[in-house]
Amino acid sequence: MKTAVLGFGTVGAGIYEMLQRAEGLEAGPVYVRKGKADTPWKTDDFDQILADPSVEAVAEAMGGLDPAFSLAERTLASGKHFVTANKMLVAEYGVRLQEIAERSCAAFLFSAACGGGVPLLHNLALARQADEIVSVQGILNGTTNYMLDQMQSAPGGSYESALHKAQSLGYAEADPTADVSGLDALRKIRLAAAVAFGLLPTDGFSEGIENVTAEDIRFYQSRGLILRLIAKTARTEEGVSAYVEPVLFGKDAPEAAVRKNYNLASYEGRASGLISFQGQGAGRYPTASAVIRDLESIRCGARRMFPEGTANGSADSPGSCSRYFVRTEKAFAALFPGAERLAEENDCVRLKTAPFFAKTMHSLVQTIREEDGRVMFAALDPLAEPEDYLC
Amino acid sequence: MKTAVLGFGTVGAGIYEMLQRAEGLEAGPVYVRKGKADTPWKTDDFDQILADPSVEAVAEAMGGLDPAFSLAERTLASGKHFVTANKMLVAEYGVRLQEIAERSCAAFLFSAACGGGVPLLHNLALARQADEIVSVQGILNGTTNYMLDQMQSAPGGSYESALHKAQSLGYAEADPTADVSGLDALRKIRLAAAVAFGLLPTDGFSEGIENVTAEDIRFYQSRGLILRLIAKTARTEEGVSAYVEPVLFGKDAPEAAVRKNYNLASYEGRASGLISFQGQGAGRYPTASAVIRDLESIRCGARRMFPEGTANGSADSPGSCSRYFVRTEKAFAALFPGAERLAEENDCVRLKTAPFFAKTMHSLVQTIREEDGRVMFAALDPLAEPEDYLC
Repeated sequence: MKTAVLGFGTVGAGIYEMLQRAEGLEAGPVYVRKGKADTPWKTDDFDQILADPSVEAVAEAMGGLDPAFSLAERTLASGKHFVTANKMLVAEYGVRLQEIAERSCAAFLFSAACGGGVPLLHNLALARQADEIVSVQGILNGTTNYMLDQMQSAPGGSYESALHKAQSLGYAEADPTADVSGLDALRKIRLAAAVAFGLLPTDGFSEGIENVTAEDIRFYQSRGLILRLIAKTARTEEGVSAYVEPVLFGKDAPEAAVRKNYNLASYEGRASGLISFQGQGAGRYPTASAVIRDLESIRCGARRMFPEGTANGSADSPGSCSRYFVRTEKAFAALFPGAERLAEENDCVRLKTAPFFAKTMHSLVQTIREEDGRVMFAALDPLAEPEDYLC
Repeated sequence: MKTAVLGFGTVGAGIYEMLQRAEGLEAGPVYVRKGKADTPWKTDDFDQILADPSVEAVAEAMGGLDPAFSLAERTLASGKHFVTANKMLVAEYGVRLQEIAERSCAAFLFSAACGGGVPLLHNLALARQADEIVSVQGILNGTTNYMLDQMQSAPGGSYESALHKAQSLGYAEADPTADVSGLDALRKIRLAAAVAFGLLPTDGFSEGIENVTAEDIRFYQSRGLILRLIAKTARTEEGVSAYVEPVLFGKDAPEAAVRKNYNLASYEGRASGLISFQGQGAGRYPTASAVIRDLESIRCGARRMFPEGTANGSADSPGSCSRYFVRTEKAFAALFPGAERLAEENDCVRLKTAPFFAKTMHSLVQTIREEDGRVMFAALDPLAEPEDYLC
């Protein structure tokens, strides 16, 4: 199956290289920006790719929405299969692209857009045909996991030095906002929600790691807790939830063992129980290998990851109910009735709250943040301090 | 796709139940032993299933070789797809069944035979089409993991009480030999070798957990080490290795976080890096869900897990090179030149050896065992005591 590649950056070049060796696949032309077609197998003329009947599939690795969206639309409308690593594209326009794919009987797959090399979406799409998916959650952003791991491995490691190190290794971008705010992980969990539940959320909420300090880490470590940034989606009677927040785990939790820039993603199926996947969430070859696996799946007959009838909608369910560790100015402690006061430092207090729904906690902290810009919170995993947990 | 079920034990009943709800699948007749067909949808006449053109696939959950093998042969020869959870069947006759399947263009899949609900083989089969698989390893036997977890959670927990508890929970059979000797895990890793490398080993070697004592566990724990039973296969220039042995991990290794009867399986791809899967390795619904996922894959076009040209052969590569912890009678210490003496208790000595190839260590211990039936050894994971590791 001859496959054209859109973009020749880190991932695009990896896809092109892997296409040369993959069983039953063949590398087609590589589409690059105007004037960048410096070898015969590169082209800046997309029409030429569309018009070539020998090209059966297109793999997109340009990122962003423009021109990725219009190229995706045109690829699928022409009846060629479309595979992408672009989470922003699928999170924004996935439903529309799926409709076009269906009309022209083309495949639309995007494993690499959630978890990089970690085969979460592929397996989720297969599992949900036969099993009821209850929830999906995991560490879906390698940059922030690397940073948290740095801060927790090097005693007293600051947020700034962890960010700097991640940037120097190429794990974090010059503008790291999408990663450290949790937005990147939120986009990924929205895709997982769509594959698992047939609802692609247009919203959801996220708390990142920007306010995590070396003192926070020290405090958690003194209680035997490990901090990770977790994305979650679940379907309950109230609907679908989708959100990202820092979570504290016990030292023997699987999440605690996820080091460096690795990802860990799990789904819970009514029949299968909890199934987890771990691997590299980014990088040239891990991401390219996920794109190639999608192309192999198409060769075997796969056509879609979204369930039939997947639609956009609101993730308006309040999420899980957890106790939270909160650090805020003393003036705001009264907003957490029934909270246990764990420590006081200068003008700040550390609280362990009564159980809150995620949505309530996030919006409460948004309110506090207008006054206390450094407020920080993390959910307590129910298994971390089990004797203490009542919801 | 109407699917007949062979056997109505724990797994067979789970498959039958899940077939009622799965997208695009339909439950066909259930084949049971002569005289056990006590409802209209059960039959003890296999010819009737073969002759029914509406039955497109057969899911086998009887276990054992007889009559499973002849029923498998006849199913595939008739052109119907065959899916099985039976590791013994595939380990013994997989190559022959694949040949029959090819001749009649039928599918032959067996995800559930290795790792139960853990989707290792499915993903391995997909990955190897595009990536070079370097190695596969993991905790593939839930019974022994449960027992080791018991012994390591309850201080002083003996092997006997752990076995008794596993039996009372239905995790271990009345005759636990296949599990505790490592033979069950060896069968599973042989299947993984075939899917990854196209060679289904007719041999391999295994060391189980029968000789692990509460004192061993106490000693390992005092050094911060966690014991797990690990199955491994790898392909190097020397060929393919396949074996099972106890391995000691550091407390923050992912393997250390695998509790109770869970399984953890990983493969390393040249491009993808290390990808791990975790979930329940046994039980009605986890195992049935793996069988159903195979049937869904067939519906999507999948036909095989073995690479083309897979053949039986010898796993004659010597395996990894590791330092080993050995407990044996003092008289045998001299067989380990360069070993560090860690402790002495009565007539026994605890050694940490120089690096040995797995094959050498296993055969050396087989020799010792003729005199010292209680000799015990475990490989040291290279990351567990890294400063110390030279191979």
